[in-house]
Formats: sequence, structure tokens, C-alpha cells
Amino acid sequence: MVLVTRKGYFCAAHRLNNPSWSDEKNDRVFGKCNNPNGHGHNYTVEVTVAGSPPADSGMVIDLKVLAEIIEEELIERVDHKNLNMDVDFMRGIIPTAENIAVAFWKILAPKITEGKLYSIRLYESQNNIVEYRGD
Amino acid sequence: MVLVTRKGYFCAAHRLNNPSWSDEKNDRVFGKCNNPNGHGHNYTVEVTVAGSPPADSGMVIDLKVLAEIIEEELIERVDHKNLNMDVDFMRGIIPTAENIAVAFWKILAPKITEGKLYSIRLYESQNNIVEYRGD
Amino acid sequence: MVLVTRKGYFCAAHRLNNPSWSDEKNDRVFGKCNNPNGHGHNYTVEVTVAGSPPADSGMVIDLKVLAEIIEEELIERVDHKNLNMDVDFMRGIIPTAENIAVAFWKILAPKITEGKLYSIRLYESQNNIVEYRGD
Amino acid sequence: MVLVTRKGYFCAAHRLNNPSWSDEKNDRVFGKCNNPNGHGHNYTVEVTVAGSPPADSGMVIDLKVLAEIIEEELIERVDHKNLNMDVDFMRGIIPTAENIAVAFWKILAPKITEGKLYSIRLYESQNNIVEYRGD
Amino acid sequence: MVLVTRKGYFCAAHRLNNPSWSDEKNDRVFGKCNNPNGHGHNYTVEVTVAGSPPADSGMVIDLKVLAEIIEEELIERVDHKNLNMDVDFMRGIIPTAENIAVAFWKILAPKITEGKLYSIRLYESQNNIVEYRGD
Amino acid sequence: MVLVTRKGYFCAAHRLNNPSWSDEKNDRVFGKCNNPNGHGHNYTVEVTVAGSPPADSGMVIDLKVLAEIIEEELIERVDHKNLNMDVDFMRGIIPTAENIAVAFWKILAPKITEGKLYSIRLYESQNNIVEYRGD
Repeated sequence: MVLVTRKGYFCAAHRLNNPSWSDEKNDRVFGKCNNPNGHGHNYTVEVTVAGSPPADSGMVIDLKVLAEIIEEELIERVDHKNLNMDVDFMRGIIPTAENIAVAFWKILAPKITEGKLYSIRLYESQNNIVEYRGD
Repeated sequence: MVLVTRKGYFCAAHRLNNPSWSDEKNDRVFGKCNNPNGHGHNYTVEVTVAGSPPADSGMVIDLKVLAEIIEEELIERVDHKNLNMDVDFMRGIIPTAENIAVAFWKILAPKITEGKLYSIRLYESQNNIVEYRGD
Repeated sequence: MVLVTRKGYFCAAHRLNNPSWSDEKNDRVFGKCNNPNGHGHNYTVEVTVAGSPPADSGMVIDLKVLAEIIEEELIERVDHKNLNMDVDFMRGIIPTAENIAVAFWKILAPKITEGKLYSIRLYESQNNIVEYRGD
Repeated sequence: MVLVTRKGYFCAAHRLNNPSWSDEKNDRVFGKCNNPNGHGHNYTVEVTVAGSPPADSGMVIDLKVLAEIIEEELIERVDHKNLNMDVDFMRGIIPTAENIAVAFWKILAPKITEGKLYSIRLYESQNNIVEYRGD
Repeated sequence: MVLVTRKGYFCAAHRLNNPSWSDEKNDRVFGKCNNPNGHGHNYTVEVTVAGSPPADSGMVIDLKVLAEIIEEELIERVDHKNLNMDVDFMRGIIPTAENIAVAFWKILAPKITEGKLYSIRLYESQNNIVEYRGD
Repeated sequence: MVLVTRKGYFCAAHRLNNPSWSDEKNDRVFGKCNNPNGHGHNYTVEVTVAGSPPADSGMVIDLKVLAEIIEEELIERVDHKNLNMDVDFMRGIIPTAENIAVAFWKILAPKITEGKLYSIRLYESQNNIVEYRGD
């Protein structure tokens, strides 16, 4: 088994807020991330696919194809967007890095047909990183 | 003369829009950056001070002091903020990287009293960088 | 299960030396790292916590809280220090990257109460990295 | 168990082409990577060794020794080379990142006698990464 | 005046060789870079444009436009190519980083019509960088 | 004129202290950097040489030669050393990044005979950078 990773990039605004909580609790739990007018990030996503490279191509998955899937299924839907307001698959979900990574997994897992989706790694900032490998 | 550079980091939302233009012109000029609900970035700012290090300290400017100035004068006012709505010194200014760098210069230049402010370099993303060195 | 990683930074001096060995053996095994007056590094530590994000917060662990734990339990005790002389929890331990990572694990594991400590990854330099995931 | 990683660097030319396929199929599968005169990369290889650090040295493997093994067994044989034409252990193998990583594993596994080879991670570019952990 | 920088990326093969020199002299001057079958790099190019941002747009040059110019005029002509054999504007020119940077300047200078081309910075590898700012 | 930059790396211990000052003043000015047992850094040095590439070689300076000069004149004298105690050319000089950069300039300027030394840029940490371009 070989793991193949391709990166994608997007920038987006978001706000961490649970509408069923009081303002006071949102402030306590989410702090500055609860700023009413939002803030934003340059996100990096690393999509890792596991598989065995066939002898005739030597590739687990064609990286051009993987790059296109990431571009079409993820980047075009979140890049230069507000994750709370503009992204259908995040509706009703608090856009923490954890929740974004899980949402990305749900979208990509059925689209990866050469090899098998192994992990979604999301860098929200230089210092904050999350990774999801499915259930 | 020695140049001394200290970095700072912030993340913020913004939208590029000129309210005196038509929607069509805003879309044409600013493209995806004109998204009504905004998007965002992890910004890195590099503040460079020029001076001659005195023999007794060997420092153009105490980097702890420079770091505190950057933190108090810049980062605390823009980090986890919406640059269009939450930042007093950006009011009425389109928050392009160019305009942010010039605004940062105006704030910092009078605060640097050891050495002299030499440049403000702002990374909006991995691929987009601006630099302002004063008039 | 989602993995959440937060980075911390410190710089420190150290010397690799086993006092029960001859000078000759210390030189042979530790080479330049055995320099009597020490040398130093900018270390980066990545602390990874594993858990399942609750629906109401969407966070495995509050990254602000994790950042504070890293700062108070690790960084304040090693930053701008000599790891052989100034750090109580390294007393009698050769400060190789491996041993520092294990020592960090022992300190942090009981402090992580949301989620569970998953790994300590320590970058001693651009080219040397160690990782410890517990026993 | 502690994982110890050492990086190495090399630059090389390569071409992705299966001589038993038609030109049309090579173009379709390998795209720009099938350019007849080749292209090239700055590769980074991360070699990870797993083991338990003995109390007297505190090191899973002496990083100087690991660095020398990487230099002699890998870098000197591929650096500033054409991977299709100049490298004996790649003869008859399509030089995809997957295949290079597997070839590196086969070379290094028997050479690592302190600890045990755990993974070969190969960065072909900023956005394309593969990893092999043995069968 | 504000400096605006946009990055581009390409990977290419090349060989350093002066056909009017003896093999012995080529080996002595160019060393490993003279390997007959070539080697390659992941290049990064930073294009910097200088200008004054107009008040109504706040942009020295539209970064989307600059990115397209870099893509069409430079990247498409060198990416996944052999710089000695496949690139018309490098014909008869030894593809050192210095010569590539100067060639890029000649191509881009007349294409930059908002602001003025200020510098071409080319990273051949992590450790080798050249910059050209015109005559 | 083309600028050519080559990087070098070293790790070292140092302490900022002016022996002619009181302990109290040293603490106030140098803070944590005055720790009696020292601390340390992974330093990166960028050496930039300016010149015009001759038509027959296309190189301002042979980067192999520049790399060797950096290795022999700088790196071997400071790597894995204590800058206060082990380095002859730093004797009596407070090892701030500013002073190290100036000392490096004095050593390298007469050694660069192809092209002309243009700048010494020294990264003490990710966030602290100094640059010296001569008088």
C-alpha cells in the first residue's frame, strides 16, 4: 500500500457560533472566533488516497485526476466564500476545522474510485491542523 | 545600516468592493474578492526597521519592544476581525493588501523611535505579497 | 475520531553527553553535539489530540485551551533555557530529541482532559524530526 | 516506540512513459509528464526509523549515521541524474513518485540496523507527496 | 510606490553545458549540472510590479491579471519542459538560473502595463535563488 | 546586474550579555536572552552576490564555489558552537543577530572575487531576521 497526497488551497471567511447558545456562552467557548462580522483564513487541504500502484502505470491514482476532483468538489465550493453563509454542505454546521474536514471526507469518499480515501488533513493556520480518517 | 525584521500574524475577513461603482464593475474588477459575504486570509506582516546597532547593546531595536509594538498597534486591531466593518483605521478604505500595508505604515512610522521604519511587507496568501517603503 | 494538532515554538541550548562514558566515547557517539559549551536549536513541537467533536461545539478540544496548556506546561519551562542545566524535568536525562519528546508526553498526557493525547512531534531542525505516541 | 525522521534532498529529471503503450495512451495517462525530453523536480525524501532509544545514548539511531546512509545509498545515486537513464535501480521501472519510494524502501530496509525502517515519504513537488511503509 | 509580488511555479529539466567548450572544461565549470541526460528542478518565480495604487481600486495591478500573464507568458512555455530542447526563447542560451531570470524579464517587461516590472526572482532550489531588476 | 543568493544553515548557542553592565540592566535590556546558561537557535544565512553573468558560463558566481566558501568560512566556524565562547571572530562582541551579520560580512567580502558581496541576511528564528549590505 502506498499513500498519495495532493494539496489544495482556498481562502474563506467564517464565524464560530452556536445559535442555540447564549451570547455569553458563545463568547466563552469560541472567544475571538465568535466575532459577529467574521474573520477568515487561508486554508490548505491535504487529501490522501491509499492504494497499490499497478505495474503498467506506477500510479495509485492519477494526480491530475485527483487534483481535478479536489478543485471541482471542494475548492470551487469554498474558495473566496463565507463558510457560514455561502456553502450549501456546511448549512447548519459550525465551521470548525474539525467539521470542515469531516464534511470534505463525506464529499470526497464516494468520488475516489482509484484507490481509497485515507485521510483529509486541513490546515486552518500555521499552528492549527486537523485530520480525519473516516470512522 | 542594518535592517531588522520582525514578523506578526493575523487572520481576518475582508471584501473588495467600491460602493461608488456598479455591481457589474465591482464584479469585473474585483472578481471573487467581491463576494458579498466576504472571504478571508491568514496574513503575515513583516516590519523592517533600519538603523545602526550601538556597540553596547548590539541591537538596532530591541526585538521584544518591536514585537510588542506590532502586537499592540497592529495585530490586536485586526486579528479575528472583519477589515471592512470592525477596523477603525480602514474605514472608507478598500482593504486591498496594498491599502492595508500603507495604513500599517502610517500607524507604525511614528511609533518606531529606535531606528527608522524601512518597510512593511504583507503576505495576503502564499502567492500574493505587497511591500511599502514609504513615499 | 478527529486528530487536532497545535504547534508551539521554543529555542534552547543543549549538549549531548553521557557523564558515565569516556570523553572519547562521547565524542564518537555524539560528535559535534558533544561540544562542551553547547549549541542550540529553534524547536517546533506539534501536540496532537484525538477525539470526537461534540455536535454543539464542533471542537475536539478548544485550541485556545490547548495552546495555553502547551505554553504553560512546556514552552515557559524550556524557552530560552539550557536543557541540560535549567530544566527540572530533564535533570539526569540526555536531551536528545527522542528524550525531550518522551518527557513532553509525560507532562502533557495527564493535562489533556478533552480528547486524548495522541502524539508529540518535535522538530529539532529542518532535517531532524522525532515523534512519540506513548507506549 | 519513537519515530525518528531525517530528510534528504535531490534534484533529478524524469519522464513518465510506458514503452509497451501507444503514444496516444501514454499521452492520455501521463499527460505533460510524458514530454519526450523530460522535465524535473527538486525532491525531498523523509526517511523514518522506529525504535526505542536506549537509556545510555537516548537515540533510536544516530542521526549522523542515518544521514550518511541516506546520502550514500540514495542521494549520490539520484542527485543531478536522469531517473530514466542514469539510475541502475530504476531500470525498467516507470519513475513515478510511488515507484521511487518503493525502490528507496528496498534499498534502505536492509541498511537500517539500529531501529527498523518505518516509512519513506517522498515530496515530488510542493503539492504531490507519496509515502510507503512496506508491505 | 508599492511593490506587488505574485508567485508562479513550474518544473523543468535542464543541463548546463557550453557546446563551444571541451568536455573537460564543461565538467570543471558546471560539475554535476553538466550531466549529459540532464537533471531538473521545481522552480518558483516571483514577479514584482511597482506602482501607485489608484484610490478607486486600491490595486497597483489586478493580481488576477498578473497571475494570468505569468501563467500564459511564462509557465505554459516552461512547465514540464526541457529548458535546453523545448523552449524557444532559451534557444542558444545556457539555462542557468541567471539566464532564465533575464529571459523572463525580457518577456514580461512589455506585458506589464499597469505599474512597471520591478524584479524577477527565481528559486531554482531551496538554497539557490537569483534576482534580476533590469539594467 | 543579477543578484545570486545561496543559503547556509548552522545551529549554535548564545547569550546576550554586556559584561560592563549591571545584572539588572542586562536583564532589562536582553530579557530572556540573558539567561546565564545560554539558549540557542537554528540559524539560516543567505549570502547574496551581485554581478553580471558572462555569456560563456551564464553564472555570476559558480554556486558550488559560493557554497564552499560559505561552508568553510562561516558554517564550520559557528555550527554546533557556543557563539560567546567558541568562535574567535566573535570574541568581545555581543552575539546579537545584527553583530553576527556584520561579522560574517567582514569575513566574506574579501573572499568573493567573482561578483561582489551584496548582502548578508540572517534568520535567527522564524520571526527575527536581520540584513546587512555593508557601509
